[in-house]
Amino acid sequence: MPQGQPSSVPDDGLTTRQRRNRPLTIVHTGIGKGKSTAAFGLALRAWNQGWPIGVFQFVKSAKWKVGEERALRVLGDSGEGGTVAWHKMGEGWSWVQRDIADSEEAAKEGWEQVKRDLAAETYQLYVLDEFAYPMHWGWVDTDEVIQVLNDRPGTQHVIITGRNAPEKLVEAADLVTDMTKVKHPMDAGQKGQKGIEW
Amino acid sequence: MPQGQPSSVPDDGLTTRQRRNRPLTIVHTGIGKGKSTAAFGLALRAWNQGWPIGVFQFVKSAKWKVGEERALRVLGDSGEGGTVAWHKMGEGWSWVQRDIADSEEAAKEGWEQVKRDLAAETYQLYVLDEFAYPMHWGWVDTDEVIQVLNDRPGTQHVIITGRNAPEKLVEAADLVTDMTKVKHPMDAGQKGQKGIEW
Repeated sequence: MPQGQPSSVPDDGLTTRQRRNRPLTIVHTGIGKGKSTAAFGLALRAWNQGWPIGVFQFVKSAKWKVGEERALRVLGDSGEGGTVAWHKMGEGWSWVQRDIADSEEAAKEGWEQVKRDLAAETYQLYVLDEFAYPMHWGWVDTDEVIQVLNDRPGTQHVIITGRNAPEKLVEAADLVTDMTKVKHPMDAGQKGQKGIEW
Repeated sequence: MPQGQPSSVPDDGLTTRQRRNRPLTIVHTGIGKGKSTAAFGLALRAWNQGWPIGVFQFVKSAKWKVGEERALRVLGDSGEGGTVAWHKMGEGWSWVQRDIADSEEAAKEGWEQVKRDLAAETYQLYVLDEFAYPMHWGWVDTDEVIQVLNDRPGTQHVIITGRNAPEKLVEAADLVTDMTKVKHPMDAGQKGQKGIEW
């Protein structure tokens, strides 16, 4: 349930409406489930508002997020809401003309494209899925990410997911949720299953 | 990223496949954001598998989850994945022929319908959104919920969201994530905005 009342009103000279419409940097981190699924759930709201959505998958995976990808593509193509552009690392970003075998180089390329899209205000919602990892691994400079986000034009919301989000990023973000694992079926010896894990 | 290996293998006489395909009870609780959005994100995977999905919204809300509802309805009607049935409390559950003004009675009616649907195996994924509240408030008996879930036939997955999930339910569930608030824009005086909160 949405919480109704802010706990304090800042002395920043902004009206409630101006403050309300500020671009948000959202971080979903922690070792529990739901970081990416909650990001894609938010994308449904953005789609309903007619916003152009850009998804960037920063970690190559055998299973990717096939269900979410197909659902968001069908929604984006339906003409009833916003558009959806889906970019995958490791299969070659769609805007890179050559194969990039190296994950670090591929992550850097992805981030460069995000920067170009932010500068051009290509999307209104960016899902930078698993983007915490390249920052955590030092492949992409966290300070630069924070500066680019701080300086981005217009009202572009950015969601970053992944374990081990750098502390500096957490400090710079507006909305941070830590998905805390309480219990997981794998603790009881159960492997992942379709429809749930992918 | 999906975790690959179970940390232990139980001595339950089941094969990996049998264990893999057991119905899951999933709980998203905690005071942070993302409990419902992650549930609806999971619904995208279920939709992609072609599963019939039943959503039951257990707390009446001015804004409901309009974006998620519209997106899932469009997906359900697309014919490209599973079907989606969306039930709302407070506007009258769709299968109740009379108005129910009282929230407690409405919650009980909703739970009765969930029981009927579980018995009939109507859906393969149930999103019982905000269902932790009626249990927390004592409107619906947690012990009965646990028993019904334990005894449900077939492979029907159930996701329950909401703050204050009863401890007994957490113990009985297979996958539990606590969405922990690290930071929220309202702490900085910012109110909710479209596309993000609804």
